[in-house]
Amino acid sequence: MENNPEFSNISACLNIYSFYDNRLKAMEKTKKVTASIIGASGYSGAELVGLLLKHPGVVIEEIYAHTQAGKHFSELYPAISCDKTFQAYSGQSDSDIYFLALPHGEALQIVPNLIAAGKTVIDLSGDFRLKSISEHKKFYGGQKREGEFLQYGMPELFRDHIIGSKAISNPGCYATSIILGLAPLFRGSVKGLSVDSVNVTAVSGISGAGRSSKTELSFSEMSGNVRAYKVGAHQHTPEIMQALGSSVENPGFRFVFTPMIAPYVRGIYSVLNVQLSSNVAMDSIHALYHDFYRSAPFVRLRDGVTEVRHVAHTNFCDISLAWENNGSLVIVTAIDNLVKGAAGQAVQNMNLMLGFDETTALL
Amino acid sequence: MENNPEFSNISACLNIYSFYDNRLKAMEKTKKVTASIIGASGYSGAELVGLLLKHPGVVIEEIYAHTQAGKHFSELYPAISCDKTFQAYSGQSDSDIYFLALPHGEALQIVPNLIAAGKTVIDLSGDFRLKSISEHKKFYGGQKREGEFLQYGMPELFRDHIIGSKAISNPGCYATSIILGLAPLFRGSVKGLSVDSVNVTAVSGISGAGRSSKTELSFSEMSGNVRAYKVGAHQHTPEIMQALGSSVENPGFRFVFTPMIAPYVRGIYSVLNVQLSSNVAMDSIHALYHDFYRSAPFVRLRDGVTEVRHVAHTNFCDISLAWENNGSLVIVTAIDNLVKGAAGQAVQNMNLMLGFDETTALL
Amino acid sequence: MENNPEFSNISACLNIYSFYDNRLKAMEKTKKVTASIIGASGYSGAELVGLLLKHPGVVIEEIYAHTQAGKHFSELYPAISCDKTFQAYSGQSDSDIYFLALPHGEALQIVPNLIAAGKTVIDLSGDFRLKSISEHKKFYGGQKREGEFLQYGMPELFRDHIIGSKAISNPGCYATSIILGLAPLFRGSVKGLSVDSVNVTAVSGISGAGRSSKTELSFSEMSGNVRAYKVGAHQHTPEIMQALGSSVENPGFRFVFTPMIAPYVRGIYSVLNVQLSSNVAMDSIHALYHDFYRSAPFVRLRDGVTEVRHVAHTNFCDISLAWENNGSLVIVTAIDNLVKGAAGQAVQNMNLMLGFDETTALL
Amino acid sequence: MENNPEFSNISACLNIYSFYDNRLKAMEKTKKVTASIIGASGYSGAELVGLLLKHPGVVIEEIYAHTQAGKHFSELYPAISCDKTFQAYSGQSDSDIYFLALPHGEALQIVPNLIAAGKTVIDLSGDFRLKSISEHKKFYGGQKREGEFLQYGMPELFRDHIIGSKAISNPGCYATSIILGLAPLFRGSVKGLSVDSVNVTAVSGISGAGRSSKTELSFSEMSGNVRAYKVGAHQHTPEIMQALGSSVENPGFRFVFTPMIAPYVRGIYSVLNVQLSSNVAMDSIHALYHDFYRSAPFVRLRDGVTEVRHVAHTNFCDISLAWENNGSLVIVTAIDNLVKGAAGQAVQNMNLMLGFDETTALL
Repeated sequence: MENNPEFSNISACLNIYSFYDNRLKAMEKTKKVTASIIGASGYSGAELVGLLLKHPGVVIEEIYAHTQAGKHFSELYPAISCDKTFQAYSGQSDSDIYFLALPHGEALQIVPNLIAAGKTVIDLSGDFRLKSISEHKKFYGGQKREGEFLQYGMPELFRDHIIGSKAISNPGCYATSIILGLAPLFRGSVKGLSVDSVNVTAVSGISGAGRSSKTELSFSEMSGNVRAYKVGAHQHTPEIMQALGSSVENPGFRFVFTPMIAPYVRGIYSVLNVQLSSNVAMDSIHALYHDFYRSAPFVRLRDGVTEVRHVAHTNFCDISLAWENNGSLVIVTAIDNLVKGAAGQAVQNMNLMLGFDETTALL
Repeated sequence: MENNPEFSNISACLNIYSFYDNRLKAMEKTKKVTASIIGASGYSGAELVGLLLKHPGVVIEEIYAHTQAGKHFSELYPAISCDKTFQAYSGQSDSDIYFLALPHGEALQIVPNLIAAGKTVIDLSGDFRLKSISEHKKFYGGQKREGEFLQYGMPELFRDHIIGSKAISNPGCYATSIILGLAPLFRGSVKGLSVDSVNVTAVSGISGAGRSSKTELSFSEMSGNVRAYKVGAHQHTPEIMQALGSSVENPGFRFVFTPMIAPYVRGIYSVLNVQLSSNVAMDSIHALYHDFYRSAPFVRLRDGVTEVRHVAHTNFCDISLAWENNGSLVIVTAIDNLVKGAAGQAVQNMNLMLGFDETTALL
Repeated sequence: MENNPEFSNISACLNIYSFYDNRLKAMEKTKKVTASIIGASGYSGAELVGLLLKHPGVVIEEIYAHTQAGKHFSELYPAISCDKTFQAYSGQSDSDIYFLALPHGEALQIVPNLIAAGKTVIDLSGDFRLKSISEHKKFYGGQKREGEFLQYGMPELFRDHIIGSKAISNPGCYATSIILGLAPLFRGSVKGLSVDSVNVTAVSGISGAGRSSKTELSFSEMSGNVRAYKVGAHQHTPEIMQALGSSVENPGFRFVFTPMIAPYVRGIYSVLNVQLSSNVAMDSIHALYHDFYRSAPFVRLRDGVTEVRHVAHTNFCDISLAWENNGSLVIVTAIDNLVKGAAGQAVQNMNLMLGFDETTALL
Repeated sequence: MENNPEFSNISACLNIYSFYDNRLKAMEKTKKVTASIIGASGYSGAELVGLLLKHPGVVIEEIYAHTQAGKHFSELYPAISCDKTFQAYSGQSDSDIYFLALPHGEALQIVPNLIAAGKTVIDLSGDFRLKSISEHKKFYGGQKREGEFLQYGMPELFRDHIIGSKAISNPGCYATSIILGLAPLFRGSVKGLSVDSVNVTAVSGISGAGRSSKTELSFSEMSGNVRAYKVGAHQHTPEIMQALGSSVENPGFRFVFTPMIAPYVRGIYSVLNVQLSSNVAMDSIHALYHDFYRSAPFVRLRDGVTEVRHVAHTNFCDISLAWENNGSLVIVTAIDNLVKGAAGQAVQNMNLMLGFDETTALL
């Protein structure tokens, strides 16, 4: 090919490519960070497997899922090219980093042990998110939490703390879409800005309910259906309050959250009705949001109104400042619940904790 | 068969049935009310055709649709057994009653002519809903409206006026689901009840956008997608305000409405965040709603949280009083946008206007 | 109203209507045929409830479903206005007619008892469809069948036998869509017409799998998915062979059936690849089908290629003779699996058995 | 971090990673192969953009789409992080390689010019697939084709020819799923194996119809719908015949192909009914397929029956040998029509043509 002058341009490229490609392959044979996933058979766990397979600095060591132990990963998820077999987790701590994608309650015992063993830990459950033990009991039930809550892993709000952490609690899916839509109003730097109330209605794809065998989540029941649930009582509410900071404790502040599911698989679409205590010009709001997220690679402020398809299969959180009138705002946000709402944000946290570029494997 | 004693019970039934069935068939050959539909090729028009075919007291005379003139109805809607052919409408007025299911603006000329010809008229468009000409211009654009607005055809609020009317403006789909969810609070009889604000987020099936050739409504674009539109600016807003009555004019009352579409065909699911000016016990709210709708055959107050599938293909409006805390309420309503939100409510109005039982052809 | 000359036309109609409507209401108070449904909580059973509620000559007496006993019907199916409560069936035989919509095997005991009690019976399961006990065992497993097979309830093929029957086995859903597409070729009157092979690929909506709690039928797993199952081994195969008659026993005749499910709820779409032993003009085939189905109110021969949406929620079976070349035919059929493929065909059978018009409650 | 002994293991990894990561970034700044896409606004074009963005040896230079010229790519496809703007194509030839993803007919002029300019070309349309000019005219209409057909770009059959080619015609989506399912029987090395007939029924997701504004492809029309089209007349038929080789010319060989669409976006599921002229043991068929595809990285022979979700968003073609009886076979294949059926296979071809690893950017 190289004797053919027509090919000289491509040939030159390929020589350069080939040289570095070989170096890269050599690099790939050197030791990488080893990662294991506990709870790898659910949708978030499987999404983590898919993302980590694309990460040039990480190698997956073990995948744990006690209900599926002995099965090949590809039996459940043939579209993801992982040749591992599910194992039952029984206290191993050989990997550098552990991701836990377990149902609430199951990480309570495991996380402290892994921390004690000196491991880097990212927990995707709600088990270590809430500072308040009483709120934890109220929303997650009876089991006593061993150890403290963990650093809340939302890079757009707590990047500096995450960089120095060895253990992180990864945010909830609804919480991510709601907190990112509200944080500049609550944690931003506009003087005199004060929020009276927030009414949130959020629609989730059905994957948010997990890999399920419930009749009510069957295709025949959910096709053509929409339904709200846990109205005013969803467990992400205290998590949102905690992340928004002290101003939610103002007497008279009201927050109502209505989650619902609609017939699609991936994505959360949140409509945030905000009532400010006084009128603020839309331009100031825009400036506030732009400033707040100026160094956030995965938050996009979108003109027009964003859509779920704009963020599906991505780690983006899209925010549209959709409407304003005399102190009333409508803000719309969209995320993929399995990526930015779970596995993607976990990898983003890992990148920060371990010193990789924040966007590695995510763009 | 009748000699066989095993069959005597069924035979007796059948003799009775046969006697009356023949009478009924005779009755069917007598003159019925004749109805024509202008704009019968869209989803609401076709739904009307289907409902009127089931009505024992009405016969469909003509179906009009200028873009489809000459085509058989069954070519577009083979699942509905109507053997009519679409005609172009050019001023005919031979039928007893006319339904108009036209895009906004197109009924402006036709309705006054039909009224002048002494016909009974039900208009499903927004052309004659708003009393305020300035609101009409703001939301429906430039064309001057000939004649007055028409009686608003929401039986649960205006039954007595509808019974005496010869011309009715049929409510909008979102408007129906929102007004019915709020009316007892605004038009009910609880002393001292006062509403400070209402934030509505409503999800509609895609049939709400009509029979469409827009790329953005194609299956490939809308599958897996959710998107809001006309945030704070939907044309049903003034219609809702008008129906709720004078208390919306209180200084400081706030109303924000965010419509969105999700990937299913039929149904509107509205989440109504209501802020009362003072705490009212949930029991009183329940009692208020039960009282307000005690004689409404199509409003169901549902325990638990209703779902779109509960009302799809029905004329019901389900209302769930889902949550209350210290004067904040979440009310959820569900309707089928093509039935209670359009064609079904139109037939319900016709039943009242012409003296049929209100539920004929609708249960 | 009657003094107003504008209203005279409608008034006249309404007087007539009113007279007969009162008679009809009187008739409705007289005794009707009483029907009970055993297995009323599944999709076919619920569809039966909905259809029978529309039937002017039948009243539903009891609905049985042992797994749901004590629950209101409307708790599971709020869109169908039935105010009955599910009962556990324990041998009752008070109704005139019994429909059984049970999983295979569960009707084996009940049907003979009901027949012995002199009841009219329509069984929607596969328990009494096959004449051959060995085929029955092969496809439906171990339980011994008490009593004979029942008259096969496909009106288009066996109307005369059904009219005289007191007990009927209602056809399977796939079987209905395939037999109706093939019957004229196998049971028609064209001399010398002989079929060498039939390859069927049929797509079913997911309701065909029943009201299910299987993970593999969850919305998240089936959205965007298509999968075949029981390839060459589906239990409707012997039923189809039996209905097509003796010519399938020709040595060398080949029949292969591949069922699959796709992400929608209702409808079966069957593509029938037929190889004739000699070329037959398409005109003759058309004539054959028209003649064969000339008195079948629910079979429609469709120009162009039919679609599932053309038959959804109807009792029609659409047949398109889509392609022919040198003895190869492609025939496409569409039915609603819950209506013509189950509950609708059952009501059609009941109408014939009891002497109602064949289409009552079905058009 | 490095002073902390707990971190030493990860630190060591990260030092190694960091060293090579910097080298890689340097490499990324060196010249890569430049690629442009003509017809980048359709679904296949956009998928190509997404895949090429992941390719370490290629950089996208221009994206052309005359109907969208001036718009940002992200306006149409916000989920793909490409910051290019659509241009109108007017004969440019500055890039190393050109992908054409245009409607049939539009590549006829452009491809010869690019070849004449010495460019590497991959055409995704049907314009240069067929050797026979008469077949081309019959299936693709009147325009005269300038120049010869191009090398058919199906790596599993023609890898060696592709490696030496500068211009490739990329296979059709249905054709890919059908040819790969049949090729071992037609082009494999089993003596005496002879196929009498093949009946194919294939289901495609709706993205196969392209980015469309047709009413019949709207969400409201296609939700819950299935429909066949171009029965026995699809333009991929001659392409399939050509790829299967000379044995399809045997007198008496029959091939019938029925394509249909169902309500999902991505994926083709093909059911291949094969009739062999004599019985061949299933073991031999299995061995034949394993041998034929032993070095094909994207063909997977699957036990059980594959599903569309197993291949969605991947470049895999799954093949299940599902059933055999006395010379009759049912073979099921699944691909993602936009990946293996279009953009993915195009990148696979590019990798072979330019000397990259065949799987780069595809696993």
